[in-house]
Amino acid sequence: MIRHGAYPTEPWSVSETALDLNVLAQSESLFALSNGHIGLRGNLDEGEPYGIPGTYLNGFYEKKPQPYAEAGYGFPETDQTLVDVANGKLVRLLVDDAPLDVRYGDLHDHHRRLDLRSGMLERTVDWSSAAQTRVRVRSRRLVSFSQRAIAAIEYVVEPVGSAARITVQSELVANEQQPGESTDPRVAAVLGHPLAPVAQDRDDRSVVLLHRTRASELLVGAGMGHIVEAPGRMASEVVVSEDWARLTVSCTVQPGEQLRVVKLLAYGWSSLRSETAVRDQVAAALAGARLTGWDGLVAEQRAYLDEFWDAADVVVDGDAELQQAVRFGLFHVLQSGARAERRAIPSKGLTGLGYDGHTFWDTEMFVLPVLTYTHPSSVADALRWRHSTLDRARARAAELHLAGAAFPWRTIRGDECSGYWPAGTAAFHIDADIADAVVRYVSATGDTGFEREVGLELLVEIARLFVSLGHYDRDGGWHIDGVTGPDEYSAVTDDNLYTNLMAARALVAAAEASLRHPDVADRLGVTPPETSVWRGAAAAVHVPFDAVLGVHQQSAGFTGHAEWDFDDDEDAYPLFLHAPYFDLYRKQVLKQADLILAMHWCGDAFTAEQKARNVDYYERRTVRDSSLSACTQAILAAETGHLDLAYDYAREAALIDLHDLQKNTHDGLHMASLAGGWLALVAGFGGFRDTGGTPSFDPALPQGLTRLRFSVRWQGLRLTVDVRHSAVTYAVVDGATASLVLLHAGEEVTVTPDAPVTRELGIRVPLLQRPAQPPGRSPEPAPPAGSEGNRGR
Amino acid sequence: MIRHGAYPTEPWSVSETALDLNVLAQSESLFALSNGHIGLRGNLDEGEPYGIPGTYLNGFYEKKPQPYAEAGYGFPETDQTLVDVANGKLVRLLVDDAPLDVRYGDLHDHHRRLDLRSGMLERTVDWSSAAQTRVRVRSRRLVSFSQRAIAAIEYVVEPVGSAARITVQSELVANEQQPGESTDPRVAAVLGHPLAPVAQDRDDRSVVLLHRTRASELLVGAGMGHIVEAPGRMASEVVVSEDWARLTVSCTVQPGEQLRVVKLLAYGWSSLRSETAVRDQVAAALAGARLTGWDGLVAEQRAYLDEFWDAADVVVDGDAELQQAVRFGLFHVLQSGARAERRAIPSKGLTGLGYDGHTFWDTEMFVLPVLTYTHPSSVADALRWRHSTLDRARARAAELHLAGAAFPWRTIRGDECSGYWPAGTAAFHIDADIADAVVRYVSATGDTGFEREVGLELLVEIARLFVSLGHYDRDGGWHIDGVTGPDEYSAVTDDNLYTNLMAARALVAAAEASLRHPDVADRLGVTPPETSVWRGAAAAVHVPFDAVLGVHQQSAGFTGHAEWDFDDDEDAYPLFLHAPYFDLYRKQVLKQADLILAMHWCGDAFTAEQKARNVDYYERRTVRDSSLSACTQAILAAETGHLDLAYDYAREAALIDLHDLQKNTHDGLHMASLAGGWLALVAGFGGFRDTGGTPSFDPALPQGLTRLRFSVRWQGLRLTVDVRHSAVTYAVVDGATASLVLLHAGEEVTVTPDAPVTRELGIRVPLLQRPAQPPGRSPEPAPPAGSEGNRGR
Repeated sequence: MIRHGAYPTEPWSVSETALDLNVLAQSESLFALSNGHIGLRGNLDEGEPYGIPGTYLNGFYEKKPQPYAEAGYGFPETDQTLVDVANGKLVRLLVDDAPLDVRYGDLHDHHRRLDLRSGMLERTVDWSSAAQTRVRVRSRRLVSFSQRAIAAIEYVVEPVGSAARITVQSELVANEQQPGESTDPRVAAVLGHPLAPVAQDRDDRSVVLLHRTRASELLVGAGMGHIVEAPGRMASEVVVSEDWARLTVSCTVQPGEQLRVVKLLAYGWSSLRSETAVRDQVAAALAGARLTGWDGLVAEQRAYLDEFWDAADVVVDGDAELQQAVRFGLFHVLQSGARAERRAIPSKGLTGLGYDGHTFWDTEMFVLPVLTYTHPSSVADALRWRHSTLDRARARAAELHLAGAAFPWRTIRGDECSGYWPAGTAAFHIDADIADAVVRYVSATGDTGFEREVGLELLVEIARLFVSLGHYDRDGGWHIDGVTGPDEYSAVTDDNLYTNLMAARALVAAAEASLRHPDVADRLGVTPPETSVWRGAAAAVHVPFDAVLGVHQQSAGFTGHAEWDFDDDEDAYPLFLHAPYFDLYRKQVLKQADLILAMHWCGDAFTAEQKARNVDYYERRTVRDSSLSACTQAILAAETGHLDLAYDYAREAALIDLHDLQKNTHDGLHMASLAGGWLALVAGFGGFRDTGGTPSFDPALPQGLTRLRFSVRWQGLRLTVDVRHSAVTYAVVDGATASLVLLHAGEEVTVTPDAPVTRELGIRVPLLQRPAQPPGRSPEPAPPAGSEGNRGR
Repeated sequence: MIRHGAYPTEPWSVSETALDLNVLAQSESLFALSNGHIGLRGNLDEGEPYGIPGTYLNGFYEKKPQPYAEAGYGFPETDQTLVDVANGKLVRLLVDDAPLDVRYGDLHDHHRRLDLRSGMLERTVDWSSAAQTRVRVRSRRLVSFSQRAIAAIEYVVEPVGSAARITVQSELVANEQQPGESTDPRVAAVLGHPLAPVAQDRDDRSVVLLHRTRASELLVGAGMGHIVEAPGRMASEVVVSEDWARLTVSCTVQPGEQLRVVKLLAYGWSSLRSETAVRDQVAAALAGARLTGWDGLVAEQRAYLDEFWDAADVVVDGDAELQQAVRFGLFHVLQSGARAERRAIPSKGLTGLGYDGHTFWDTEMFVLPVLTYTHPSSVADALRWRHSTLDRARARAAELHLAGAAFPWRTIRGDECSGYWPAGTAAFHIDADIADAVVRYVSATGDTGFEREVGLELLVEIARLFVSLGHYDRDGGWHIDGVTGPDEYSAVTDDNLYTNLMAARALVAAAEASLRHPDVADRLGVTPPETSVWRGAAAAVHVPFDAVLGVHQQSAGFTGHAEWDFDDDEDAYPLFLHAPYFDLYRKQVLKQADLILAMHWCGDAFTAEQKARNVDYYERRTVRDSSLSACTQAILAAETGHLDLAYDYAREAALIDLHDLQKNTHDGLHMASLAGGWLALVAGFGGFRDTGGTPSFDPALPQGLTRLRFSVRWQGLRLTVDVRHSAVTYAVVDGATASLVLLHAGEEVTVTPDAPVTRELGIRVPLLQRPAQPPGRSPEPAPPAGSEGNRGR
């Protein structure tokens, strides 16, 4: 889709050199800007044509009833869906009497560029109207990292060749029309007119529209203010109505002159605060931004990103596409979480309405691991959001006859919104995933304050859930029956290995954290007998293994199931659109990494030989119909010595949206897979693991790469790992006297700022041959190093 | 509910001696009349008050979309629901100027009686208006077994004490108002105004209203005609509009005189035929009924039922309640199927809208076994209906990537209507149940023509389904994974024992029937290699057994699951309204007989000791939240020597609606449980099985009964089995020279019409103690024999 000449490969930006309306919706997702609080899809300034218009505020949702053909006890009755709020991106242009619309007149040139270092979307347009009046338009857009409520647009028009009468209409439009419904379950339901008007304010400098959602009763304020620079006499007026507001500026501009409009946007919402409070909050944000000014906002944005890249950048030599993709992915992962601040990080960030704007386990197991080591404060925020939903999760557990807290499979506000329980409520591993994110964050940062205030309570309630969920068999083994693991092509199975191992880790973590903070544990009612129960269950956890085949079982009995008949389905991916769940569930076919994921995060539970055999077995049965798979397959392929296969998977994970590999980038970006691109490189080729509180590395590069350089933040330090085929160098930045102990291929190594450490690397030999994938599902081979295909397709 | 003094225990009728509006809706179900084609709920003649008004035609449904919160491939998009058609039962009465309404004036006496031998619902009312004008009304109502399209009402009014001006309004009303919606999943959704008017005809003697359903586009005609006998001058008029028609008759009646109105009703519907054809069909039915006249219809009805009872009656001595209940059940089972004629038999017959009027496996495994031995022609018809839906079942199988035919879990027209696949589509045992019904019918009747025309094709397509559904393990065992058995508190399990054994039987039956009819088999494309595949799979079928506990497993791994915690839920039955499926599915708790059902129908696969141990194990875990359980538990309790427990269960099955045990009799009768009352007696205390084509008996009575006498039709003969504690006598009726070979307790016995055979009976000693049931779920103990409680509560 988006793999064509209009998108050159560049190291620090994503550019579009010509406009192709067939990929307009995809480009809107790629060019989306967000700070985690406000999200603007990359719609054209003039609003039309569009693929999907979108302006989102994190956590701002509408409720709707969940329909069931046959309802059951505990089925959630209410769904939540992200709402497209008032669109402030609109800047329409009238040239003489023709509206700028790229579908009419002559478009001489059209460039867009997302600059990953400035954090701005830039656009240049060279256009003539049907009447042959020619203009150049340059716009720049940002969603501010430094001022959470603010987005801003600079819009500059310049006539070419002859003078033109220029009219700019800057608008704020609520309840925009949305494209029609889809039958794909991954697409959000579209709500018509979700916003009821509450009030409209205007003064000399700004307009604020207040609306309230009809069912969820959330109040939202959207404001705009302008700074206009015109080259002479100018007429302007502001019109405000319930669902829209408009500033109109008209003037005659000569060639060589320009009309410049800076548009400041502010958004705020609340479920509790009054109309006055929300109105004032929006007006205050506008006032602050006006004080900072356009240049100030641009400078702040750059400074914020410079700091981020300084600690987070990944250098990939030998593959320009992958280099671009991993930075693109990191940028969007940062955007999704940077200023989310105790709101969820949705699976598509704020780039589209896919999956209704819900957050899933993707956040804890794919996005947060990246942010833990690159932007840890946003991890603390994301987990504080989970903590803020504990009451809802406790109520859900009680409804399900369980103890502790049952976190929702998908949600915006914290309530379970899954309308299909076998692949929703039954996926209790979400609780273990949250526990793992807590443990990982505390281990990497040493943030004991967080652990005391937030982490321990999460761990305790999660441990209580799992103890109530599991049971002992007559031989003393501990089992979790009837739950669903990560792989959505199996459901409601006994002893899902990933769930069992992760639950065991969570139980131990809760016991250990309780020991570290006995006063807090005491307040939470934790007693020594209770922690003994946790440790006992963890120690007795059942790990299903098929002794005849010598491989672990994804869940009890899995390796005895029938094989999928791939002959019938070579062109029928994703399978879930072509086959019933009943058939997928009962066969040995995987949508995504599950046991493989357990081998990544619980690697200690497997021998090297088991890992090799398990990879060999499950690779052949994994169709990767989920975007949460390639990165994990990359990591284990690398660990088991299939470096070239790992490389292909790493590219697939990182390029998922730039190449629109799932053909649904138009609905928003796949944040977990973009994060997975980083994980594939760092955990895959860097061999990075957190081994009991010590960072551990075991690097090895595939043929196609000549160098991989990445950094991880660890306990306030930045550790830089620079890998070449022959050797790896570990270096520490920050803190003149600090030293860091790490494991290199099992060897304990101490690194200080003065003394980087270099180790030679051998050749990694796989135990088994490179495994095959299901028909048609081998990852696309990377183009030969340095080839044309790797530069600019 | 209905257990109060107003319902005396009578051998051949069900009477209500006073009107209690609190049980009005239940009484409407109990007093429902049907011939399998037309169903009239027992609503009061004057229409109000009502619990649920209802006039149904078998197979006449409306379509509606199936909603899903998260849809998936193969989820049925359309539901079907039975429609309340034009109500012709209405006969309103005006006494002077007061409408007869039991809620006003003085109701001196109100009797209703369902006569199981005449097949009529009789009513007498003695009522005074507020103005103290007193009348006696007597009405009788029948739905004709002999004239399929006809129902009729005789309505007689007689003033008491003084003359009265009597006005009778006889009506036909379409799109009646329905009571509101319920949240119980077992209750049908209510459609508003499902019928669009098409045409209205009237002539001197009758009115016909034609309507069409809006979505399913079925055409229905409802007609009424009258015979009026008035004691003098009479005014009458007919008014017809789109949705209603009314005959009004007025006259003055003296004490000792009476006004008599006979109302004839005719119904017909079609998905194909023209308006003219349907109109003429209804008019012709009315003309035929008019020719027969009221007395003729009454006589035909009695003759039909005399023949039925002559071959089907069950005599139970020692328990008057059970005697009444088993006849009541047989009567309603007959009503559900007698003239269904290639339409489905719904789970509630035509007595209410419960379960949307759908048919389930209940029909083949509970209702048809009774009809096979008491009214076999209706079994052939019901299975011909299944055969008529083969194309839809083949299409469904193909949609599910399976071979053969996948019959729907619930349907009216033959399309899958289940909106929750784990307890719907996944319950593939429906196919084996249909196969079993075919085999049972052919075995009992010797109807080889049916086998050639209908049975073999059903068996072949069912065998093909199961072969495509199963698979071999590495040791050569044959498994069916990921399906749901009868017990709805487990779902999507591997190797459900019932499904495996029943599928194996179906495979063998298909192979054997193919041998009997090689020409038909050849036309169906059956080859020797294919039948070998069927026999091979059946021979290798896996039967899960827990060697440590010495019991079979309901499904693979079942006996390793956690136990249900009954402490929490003593008052929370049915569990599915108080606990999530996920928790029910993963624990050792059963909604209903499953393995126990396999031991009934596939008894040869178990030793006597295994049966005893299995009963002991599963009894303790079965909560009987389904009405499809007590009868089967009765049968196996009897076989394993727990005769008193069996007796309690037999009563529960038979009394389910007379005692409103499930508290939803108002939505219609539980046809399977009513049939199960017969099964509990005949298969339980009679020990009746069809053992490889030979009828087999092994009688034993519980303490509470002194005698059990029943008949089964076998190959054109009637075999009567008369059981007392000390002895059993087998006798053959019909066919002067016929003889019948049967097995008595394993001994081969030949019975001829001249020579009944008597055998003494010993005492049956159970291997194990009487098992306990879950807390609060022991069946109600039968009252002591001859006690007051057993006569007339």
